[in-house]
Amino acid sequence: MFHHSSKLQYPVKVDKPNPQFAMLLQQAIGGIEGEIRVAMQYFFQAMGARGDDRIRDMLMSTATEELSHIEMLGHAVALNLEGAPVSYQEETAKDPVMNAILGGANPRHLLSSGLSAMPVNANGVPFDMSHIYATGNVGADMLANVAAEAGGRVLASRLYNWTDDHGMKDFLSFLIARDTYHQQQWLAVIEELGGMQAQLPIPNSTPEDHEAMQHSYYYLNTLLDKEAPKGRWGEGPSLDGKSEYSIVNQPAPEGQEPTLGKAKPNSGAQNEQM
Amino acid sequence: MFHHSSKLQYPVKVDKPNPQFAMLLQQAIGGIEGEIRVAMQYFFQAMGARGDDRIRDMLMSTATEELSHIEMLGHAVALNLEGAPVSYQEETAKDPVMNAILGGANPRHLLSSGLSAMPVNANGVPFDMSHIYATGNVGADMLANVAAEAGGRVLASRLYNWTDDHGMKDFLSFLIARDTYHQQQWLAVIEELGGMQAQLPIPNSTPEDHEAMQHSYYYLNTLLDKEAPKGRWGEGPSLDGKSEYSIVNQPAPEGQEPTLGKAKPNSGAQNEQM
Amino acid sequence: MFHHSSKLQYPVKVDKPNPQFAMLLQQAIGGIEGEIRVAMQYFFQAMGARGDDRIRDMLMSTATEELSHIEMLGHAVALNLEGAPVSYQEETAKDPVMNAILGGANPRHLLSSGLSAMPVNANGVPFDMSHIYATGNVGADMLANVAAEAGGRVLASRLYNWTDDHGMKDFLSFLIARDTYHQQQWLAVIEELGGMQAQLPIPNSTPEDHEAMQHSYYYLNTLLDKEAPKGRWGEGPSLDGKSEYSIVNQPAPEGQEPTLGKAKPNSGAQNEQM
Amino acid sequence: MFHHSSKLQYPVKVDKPNPQFAMLLQQAIGGIEGEIRVAMQYFFQAMGARGDDRIRDMLMSTATEELSHIEMLGHAVALNLEGAPVSYQEETAKDPVMNAILGGANPRHLLSSGLSAMPVNANGVPFDMSHIYATGNVGADMLANVAAEAGGRVLASRLYNWTDDHGMKDFLSFLIARDTYHQQQWLAVIEELGGMQAQLPIPNSTPEDHEAMQHSYYYLNTLLDKEAPKGRWGEGPSLDGKSEYSIVNQPAPEGQEPTLGKAKPNSGAQNEQM
Amino acid sequence: MFHHSSKLQYPVKVDKPNPQFAMLLQQAIGGIEGEIRVAMQYFFQAMGARGDDRIRDMLMSTATEELSHIEMLGHAVALNLEGAPVSYQEETAKDPVMNAILGGANPRHLLSSGLSAMPVNANGVPFDMSHIYATGNVGADMLANVAAEAGGRVLASRLYNWTDDHGMKDFLSFLIARDTYHQQQWLAVIEELGGMQAQLPIPNSTPEDHEAMQHSYYYLNTLLDKEAPKGRWGEGPSLDGKSEYSIVNQPAPEGQEPTLGKAKPNSGAQNEQM
Amino acid sequence: MFHHSSKLQYPVKVDKPNPQFAMLLQQAIGGIEGEIRVAMQYFFQAMGARGDDRIRDMLMSTATEELSHIEMLGHAVALNLEGAPVSYQEETAKDPVMNAILGGANPRHLLSSGLSAMPVNANGVPFDMSHIYATGNVGADMLANVAAEAGGRVLASRLYNWTDDHGMKDFLSFLIARDTYHQQQWLAVIEELGGMQAQLPIPNSTPEDHEAMQHSYYYLNTLLDKEAPKGRWGEGPSLDGKSEYSIVNQPAPEGQEPTLGKAKPNSGAQNEQM
Repeated sequence: MFHHSSKLQYPVKVDKPNPQFAMLLQQAIGGIEGEIRVAMQYFFQAMGARGDDRIRDMLMSTATEELSHIEMLGHAVALNLEGAPVSYQEETAKDPVMNAILGGANPRHLLSSGLSAMPVNANGVPFDMSHIYATGNVGADMLANVAAEAGGRVLASRLYNWTDDHGMKDFLSFLIARDTYHQQQWLAVIEELGGMQAQLPIPNSTPEDHEAMQHSYYYLNTLLDKEAPKGRWGEGPSLDGKSEYSIVNQPAPEGQEPTLGKAKPNSGAQNEQM
Repeated sequence: MFHHSSKLQYPVKVDKPNPQFAMLLQQAIGGIEGEIRVAMQYFFQAMGARGDDRIRDMLMSTATEELSHIEMLGHAVALNLEGAPVSYQEETAKDPVMNAILGGANPRHLLSSGLSAMPVNANGVPFDMSHIYATGNVGADMLANVAAEAGGRVLASRLYNWTDDHGMKDFLSFLIARDTYHQQQWLAVIEELGGMQAQLPIPNSTPEDHEAMQHSYYYLNTLLDKEAPKGRWGEGPSLDGKSEYSIVNQPAPEGQEPTLGKAKPNSGAQNEQM
Repeated sequence: MFHHSSKLQYPVKVDKPNPQFAMLLQQAIGGIEGEIRVAMQYFFQAMGARGDDRIRDMLMSTATEELSHIEMLGHAVALNLEGAPVSYQEETAKDPVMNAILGGANPRHLLSSGLSAMPVNANGVPFDMSHIYATGNVGADMLANVAAEAGGRVLASRLYNWTDDHGMKDFLSFLIARDTYHQQQWLAVIEELGGMQAQLPIPNSTPEDHEAMQHSYYYLNTLLDKEAPKGRWGEGPSLDGKSEYSIVNQPAPEGQEPTLGKAKPNSGAQNEQM
Repeated sequence: MFHHSSKLQYPVKVDKPNPQFAMLLQQAIGGIEGEIRVAMQYFFQAMGARGDDRIRDMLMSTATEELSHIEMLGHAVALNLEGAPVSYQEETAKDPVMNAILGGANPRHLLSSGLSAMPVNANGVPFDMSHIYATGNVGADMLANVAAEAGGRVLASRLYNWTDDHGMKDFLSFLIARDTYHQQQWLAVIEELGGMQAQLPIPNSTPEDHEAMQHSYYYLNTLLDKEAPKGRWGEGPSLDGKSEYSIVNQPAPEGQEPTLGKAKPNSGAQNEQM
Repeated sequence: MFHHSSKLQYPVKVDKPNPQFAMLLQQAIGGIEGEIRVAMQYFFQAMGARGDDRIRDMLMSTATEELSHIEMLGHAVALNLEGAPVSYQEETAKDPVMNAILGGANPRHLLSSGLSAMPVNANGVPFDMSHIYATGNVGADMLANVAAEAGGRVLASRLYNWTDDHGMKDFLSFLIARDTYHQQQWLAVIEELGGMQAQLPIPNSTPEDHEAMQHSYYYLNTLLDKEAPKGRWGEGPSLDGKSEYSIVNQPAPEGQEPTLGKAKPNSGAQNEQM
Repeated sequence: MFHHSSKLQYPVKVDKPNPQFAMLLQQAIGGIEGEIRVAMQYFFQAMGARGDDRIRDMLMSTATEELSHIEMLGHAVALNLEGAPVSYQEETAKDPVMNAILGGANPRHLLSSGLSAMPVNANGVPFDMSHIYATGNVGADMLANVAAEAGGRVLASRLYNWTDDHGMKDFLSFLIARDTYHQQQWLAVIEELGGMQAQLPIPNSTPEDHEAMQHSYYYLNTLLDKEAPKGRWGEGPSLDGKSEYSIVNQPAPEGQEPTLGKAKPNSGAQNEQM
């Protein structure tokens, strides 16, 4: 069951409101790199977590933290929209620089939300829940979480680089820090589970006789006019310790030509196809 | 520039067509764990790859392989739909078992595609390109790719477990094998780049003074009625070698109450809010 | 069956075309507060209306009026795009102010629609039909309609406040007026049905023994650090006349810990979960 | 800031797992009538609430309760999927009745989530955040909330009617009860604000001279072959106390024919249009 | 301005209600081959039609007819859902055959719409307005319309083939007929405009010096292991009468290798990319 | 099976990078008129092509060419983003003109992709695969392809008109040329199949007794206040050579009033509906 405190997890200040930055911040709320995504991803992973209950508890606990991040970002958006013009005749709207800034603002912050945050990204596209990756496989889920937090920290760093507002930089430095930890947190789960070698290939429960293992350890170079790039992926022991890497250049197809024959009567095709 | 051979990468046979399995296979084409996703993800990552050109070449080369996987799966779907009824009066449609199977089939295989594959998942939901994760950051991209291949191999294993068709099992064992390699391929890139410790935290180009590092290495336990789960994430050196993990239980909020005050005149609020 | 007159329901004039306002107007066409939404919502509610045929007739009649509103708004968008530049070298495009305005315009009005309206919102996001609320329950439908018209009038007022074009203000004052009536129209249906007390709780056909009524009349305060806000929702007779309101502060969970146990063999989980 | 208890808000038991009912329950999680919708709607309304802080606190407090409802429903889905077959050869899958049930199940519960809940509706369509209605206008928001809770209680009642599982019926009776209260809660806010008459028309801050009031109080009958249905909407004082209702039958258009003239050179039209 | 008659354009009868066929019919309402699509496509094309006003009138007139088709299909869906069970305990739901049929039904017809039509396709996926093709170019629009009507008639024929209900067959035979005419109607517009040769290439207003015409008339065969298929596309005069067709086999790339160089500082890339 | 060359199909140069034009180019990648759409449409049509294998080969071969077009456009976008500011303090970002341009740029090119292409349109809306039209009917598919290429050439011409960059104009002139050919290519297939007269109405395999042919050849004028526009669509032999066109003005409905009667008990309606 969830509970709430009326205060924010970390202070959120804006020195100089900027409607264009409000629009950029939306990416951290409703973007695929954003906080709704991780909050809901950890929540649904938790609700399907089978096996070690410590991991379910961690998922739910961190999902809860991410909800608090949405709350802070939502407040940051509203503070950046304080003073945004609601009429073309307002002084601010007539100023060429402000007009340029407004050109880059989200018009729905004016029209739809009444100067507050929305569950959309920086293009105004609503977040959709197909981005919640929760497989029921702890290895796949942990990797998806590290990847999500990596994307999140890239985004927070770009936002930090863009703004020159001290309040916003302070707030973003907190989000950057938490993303640092969360990357490590999910990798630490993998370490607990025996590390990458024990977990690979994911799922590690697939019996070897379900796999055409002669195709499991070569790099396939489909480039016609270049040799395969040389590197760790083409030589040395495989990362799961089970085989050696090799390279296959310019592979010939092994399969058949995929002809389907004639269309079935009454299937709605043209007569010429039957 | 792309080229094509008229044969499939690997043979695709179906011993006994099954329209319900055709519907399940769609998840491997148009699902978030599917082949359109990885093909397009590697393609767009390649087009934005800055730095080491070997990595761009690998991304484009493997994108090309994944296109060949879509092609095989599309053929597998069509073969599973051979013989599916197009009329309620057909013998097969009257059979209770077949009727039950049809209940679980994708009706649009009959209505929309004329008994062939579609770019949709097992629920018939079209794939959308918001699932292409390409950040321009090689660390984040590689992790997203490992995660995608982990999800893909989980899916291929579940499809393998479900079907009892020998042709389909043979084909799926090939996909399982390639997903094994692709997981390792992207992890091998990380190893080339110095391994996880050198790459963490992602992005590793964020200066330390952009980060509130006092918040970077603790596990935050938001569960009110339980201690934090004990494990690697709460003790020992951090995975980037820069600090030690710790735990914060039942955190108090550090921020302010997020009050917004009154609504602006002419902003479309109710009078009572102004 | 539908019919059409070749003239608009109300005159639509634009004194000074403004491509940025064309983009804002799109919210009233293809936004969730827009006219496609209400037209289609009333249409689908009408097609599923069981019971009093007068209500079905009203739904269809007003759906028809809303189609005429889309038509007027579409014309308003086209008129605001008259004279918009189609080339970077045009005089207007070189002007800094025009350039700023273009920055805030919808690029697809140039690229995709050839300077006319599209079924998208002010962010260029296409309307999707999941926003059509039609439950087959007349109480729920009427409330959804009042809510839709309330959102619509908020939007029309914000558009009115933004523009300084006399033609557009005149046109928007007509839309504001019709939204006033439509709010009242759907509330008047509720009054006909005996008023809110008779309709509540919706659906009023749910037998009382399907409801855990000890949980039906208290306000649950999940805030940990604040008492529940005092107000009508926590004291006095309930609005359906069946009970008294009360307040529960800082509730303790009544349910169990949701442990799932081990994963099933062959379900695609990691070995560690089984 | 959010917190979490490890136990559920209310006990969730399933007497006899049913994968088809798991699929139906998804509508209450990820459908437009579902709990993700109301949780996020109240959350985003709270983050944009200007004016009376009690209302912001209520929105956040109830958003928090709705998160707990998602949690319970997610557990209910997982419990209904216990024992679902993961292979065509399993005993359960061979049974014709079970096969029929599976025909009506969500295939992605098997393929994608590993037998647990997903943020999708009963068709497997992911929830998208465009359904979060938060206008910054307290009247519009409260009506949207009552409408959402009305839809939610209709859905919970239909689920209750469908199932014959005692555990599920008990759980659903709790959800039905809370939806009863939440309908009343948001209507009680309107009562606090002076009742419907004071709040109408929404927004009540629109000045009267922004409105073409001669069009504000008549029912427009666009049906060609029927008189307007008689009722409260066409006679008597208006619900905002400002006017009298009337009826306009078979209205003639008042506007012009919407001719656009010729296409602009270089606008990509055909020569014949220029 | 739109108007409505209270009767349907053509009689709609259902001899034996079938909830599975209700689900299939949804494709003709909310599918990409369906009536919402053509109604809205012609409507938006009309609102942007520049040039000959007869074409705008036709577009609006036929849009109006398509709205009447939605209305008939909506009624057909509701009639097919009459008698569908709303409880698992009902006699019909216990019958294995009925259960199988229900497996193939749309669960939201029960849960969300209360046994009536929805603006969704046969998978339950809501229609979205990105499918409205309206370019402002009359040639492109007419072709898009012919293509849409071709898809529509394919669908109607498949539905006709599937059902054995006499009422439904009669109704579908009407839709098939109208789709026949509408294909011809839009092609007749092209004939009026001088026929395909005059209209090609679309847009015909693009000056020849904007086009690298040496690339305009050859078939490019990207298949590595097959000659180009021989046919009209590779020989003879081009359809616009301006050139001769030819064939290019196994083309070599003419462009450069698309290297991007190093990433920009502060762009959020990894250090290794800079 | 697919293969790749490391060079582009045609040279792509940008004389002066322009982040706003990068945003416009996205329409040609991820818009409904764009290259992802045609690449995937031809690919899925090929995988379902029954009948003449030459057509399947053409579809796959041209799908492959379109993939190469995505590759070029992706490089063009990245080149236009070279030098775009990543910080508000950069010189370029302070310049009012640049600021205006940035107002019209896609913020996610900065935040999400790190200055490279994305699979989205000019509004930043991701492409979704519902736009892949592949019916299994060769006539319907060819028409859909001509329509798609018509839209594509309209778009390429508008982009050509907008830009004044010589490199971009040269590149776009190549795309315009290929779109010219592809329009003709798919029309040439129809000519091979006997021409439009033989193919109409699509599907031409629908038996005449499935069609209410008395409704197949008249233009229905639903405009109340205007005669039907005169033209080829209302007189002369039909384009399939089977009948004569005629006109029906102001049609009266032929069907019944669509009354549904009372709601079923336990269906979740209000009591007043039962």
